[in-house]
Amino acid sequence: MPKLFIITFSLLLFAGFANAQNNKPYVRIAKIVIDSTQLESYKSQLKTGMETAVKIEPGVLSMYAVYDNQFPTHITILETYASKEAYQSHILTPHFKKYKSGTLSMVKSLELTDVTPIAYEAKKKK
Amino acid sequence: MPKLFIITFSLLLFAGFANAQNNKPYVRIAKIVIDSTQLESYKSQLKTGMETAVKIEPGVLSMYAVYDNQFPTHITILETYASKEAYQSHILTPHFKKYKSGTLSMVKSLELTDVTPIAYEAKKKK
Repeated sequence: MPKLFIITFSLLLFAGFANAQNNKPYVRIAKIVIDSTQLESYKSQLKTGMETAVKIEPGVLSMYAVYDNQFPTHITILETYASKEAYQSHILTPHFKKYKSGTLSMVKSLELTDVTPIAYEAKKKK
Repeated sequence: MPKLFIITFSLLLFAGFANAQNNKPYVRIAKIVIDSTQLESYKSQLKTGMETAVKIEPGVLSMYAVYDNQFPTHITILETYASKEAYQSHILTPHFKKYKSGTLSMVKSLELTDVTPIAYEAKKKK
């Protein structure tokens, strides 16, 4: 009986921990280098994919994409999801799959870094 | 007389061009490495400086700061100003000067990259 209690208690603890982990925002910086001959098409597909994700997925909180002025094929995206689960659900959506398959041949390299917000400050949209 | 006309016309053209340039958003990625023994103090001063800038300066549109999970002393900030002039005015403000002098000894390296937005998508704040 005490053994069962310990097992149950441990499982509950673990579940609580896993849940706490999943409820943390999941934030990443993606650094992508694009084939220069397909850059305009890539940017257009990226923009469409981002707009759709933030609009229809409750767990996709924000996506900010920029290109390097000196190396315009170098793209950086700051992606913020409500949780790791929200990210995992994002990559299963039709719009993400469409972006991924549509841009696969354009991406020369992709580097992902997990990050944690210190502060997000923005003027409120009117 | 035609020479004066040409000079005047050129100056007007240049002024128009300079103005168009200045009205473009000015966006940068700052990559900063912080002395690990002063990291908490740095983050707190950064947050305060960012909050104040976005709150009181009309030309500071957004600032997003994150740290690398694997290398927590590595900070990335995506800074968006309404124009180059807004940035130049930002660095003259008392809160920026306070942040700059207060964190000078904490910053081990600083790398600035000028970038251009492709898309900024975020859930609207309620």
